[in-house]
Amino acid sequence: MIPQKSYYAGIDLGASYLKFGIVDSRFEIIFKGSVPLGKKKSRKSILKLLENSIRLLLAFAKGKHIKIKSIGMGIPGTIDSKKGIVKGTPPNLPEISNMNLRQMLNRYFVYPIFMDNDANLVALAESRIGAAKGYKNALCLTIGTGIGGGVILDGKLFRGSTFAGAEFGHMIICYHGIKCNCRSNGCLEVYASAPAMIKRTKMFLYQGRKSIIPELVSGKLDRITTETIFQAEKMKDDLAREVICDTAEFLGIGITSAINLLNPQIVVIGGGVSRAGAKFVRLIERETKKRGFPSITDKLKITRAKLGNDAGFIGAAILAAEQP
Amino acid sequence: MIPQKSYYAGIDLGASYLKFGIVDSRFEIIFKGSVPLGKKKSRKSILKLLENSIRLLLAFAKGKHIKIKSIGMGIPGTIDSKKGIVKGTPPNLPEISNMNLRQMLNRYFVYPIFMDNDANLVALAESRIGAAKGYKNALCLTIGTGIGGGVILDGKLFRGSTFAGAEFGHMIICYHGIKCNCRSNGCLEVYASAPAMIKRTKMFLYQGRKSIIPELVSGKLDRITTETIFQAEKMKDDLAREVICDTAEFLGIGITSAINLLNPQIVVIGGGVSRAGAKFVRLIERETKKRGFPSITDKLKITRAKLGNDAGFIGAAILAAEQP
Repeated sequence: MIPQKSYYAGIDLGASYLKFGIVDSRFEIIFKGSVPLGKKKSRKSILKLLENSIRLLLAFAKGKHIKIKSIGMGIPGTIDSKKGIVKGTPPNLPEISNMNLRQMLNRYFVYPIFMDNDANLVALAESRIGAAKGYKNALCLTIGTGIGGGVILDGKLFRGSTFAGAEFGHMIICYHGIKCNCRSNGCLEVYASAPAMIKRTKMFLYQGRKSIIPELVSGKLDRITTETIFQAEKMKDDLAREVICDTAEFLGIGITSAINLLNPQIVVIGGGVSRAGAKFVRLIERETKKRGFPSITDKLKITRAKLGNDAGFIGAAILAAEQP
Repeated sequence: MIPQKSYYAGIDLGASYLKFGIVDSRFEIIFKGSVPLGKKKSRKSILKLLENSIRLLLAFAKGKHIKIKSIGMGIPGTIDSKKGIVKGTPPNLPEISNMNLRQMLNRYFVYPIFMDNDANLVALAESRIGAAKGYKNALCLTIGTGIGGGVILDGKLFRGSTFAGAEFGHMIICYHGIKCNCRSNGCLEVYASAPAMIKRTKMFLYQGRKSIIPELVSGKLDRITTETIFQAEKMKDDLAREVICDTAEFLGIGITSAINLLNPQIVVIGGGVSRAGAKFVRLIERETKKRGFPSITDKLKITRAKLGNDAGFIGAAILAAEQP
């Protein structure tokens, strides 16, 4: 008899989208999909969406005659991964504050359900089948609306004492710096996230700096995205180049603090901003290697994430697969 | 027959002193001593000093009819703790650069010799019998001439990928800040070490600020130490208070970055500056709790180191004792 292959479902709950999929035991994607959370998000609607996406995954598996062994979920917040509970109120998805998600979902499904912070699971995915594959100590940063990340130490996902930590965006790079939503000020996130890049660009434009950017957005500055900025930079726009160089410098500074503390083998840069290209990552690398301790930066690799938008649900499925 | 108790020798090689001692299996001190490295330090004289102090410890043990099982050593630099080799050139003790210490000492002694970075061993000592006893995740900062430290994760000493890391003094707290010896700028060490405090005090004095400090050092500003500053603060000196508050703020900022990344249960503050008193540590705590993520600071304890100057050799002996 041929041994039956194992399959795992992964769900990545984001602030605006729910992504999901099924992977096999080698973490290859068998199926994937996504749905928007909708404008009228509520505690109930999100739970319903999670329930329906699990039903969909199970129905797909049934149709394919494969058996899902367990389900993993990534949640944007502090997650008690032992109990499967959302701790406190996630800033980007306050609707699910303090939800006992595992218990709620186990009312409908008898499958083992595991969950963790979404950025942690991205790091797990990159470390198993992505850019950090084969490295025991890795830092994975995700740069988008915020700056988050995950830490892999000795091959395992590092979770901290209270399931928090890896808050790369809230390392302080400027002690009397710009106010941050987290109550502190001078946090990396206020200087190097996507909104920070856009804000910086607009500030320069309001100051009367010349740039091709207003033309690219037909004069509507509210339409500026990081893509606009990277597009302008490719067109040799000075303002865009300055914003990108500044952002890379800020990121290099934050990463320097992190590597001087954690001495990893590799730093993986993911998220929307990183998709701009290899050049941006090289700028970050240059700043980090200029500042970090030589004994730490000598063999350090800094590279782009590999898995893109799928990393979240793949990581969730891997979390489920790696349970003893 | 009563089982024979085990004893371990510990040696703490500093930039100006060599401290050593013997502890029993409960890590209680049986004997301790120290010798100055002398003004004419050389590769040879340091090796000789290490050799002689080991002979002394073994002679003491023989006299007491106790048996040393193994020897641990703390070295101020990056140490390949597996091979017992100094990696590169320690900034505060360049004489021992790249020394294969274990091999050299094993020519004279047949005892198993283990070594590690000195700040790591202070952290190990504090975690086993000091302020961090009973906590699985701890950060230990040592604030003196420089700012170093050690990280305990899951009860074990964290060593990084290349035996580096835990460089708390080289977390960047100000991106365009003061130049640091490490090539970077804005490092915590340039703002909050003992020399930084003294420099800041002198700067204020040169600016014409009134203070009792010149009187305390009979007008000789080069005699100002951190003790002078803390003494002046106790005498309600405004300038001293400002320097101390600034230093605590800087330390709180650096610690915030570290705890937001590592989510420890406890932060232990050691080294000369910390011995100023509980009040200084409370100032650091206030800044950290004001800035850190609530989910991380809620149950976080920030406290003074317990073991003082003995921590180094005790940690070295513990390193030896905990070898499998």
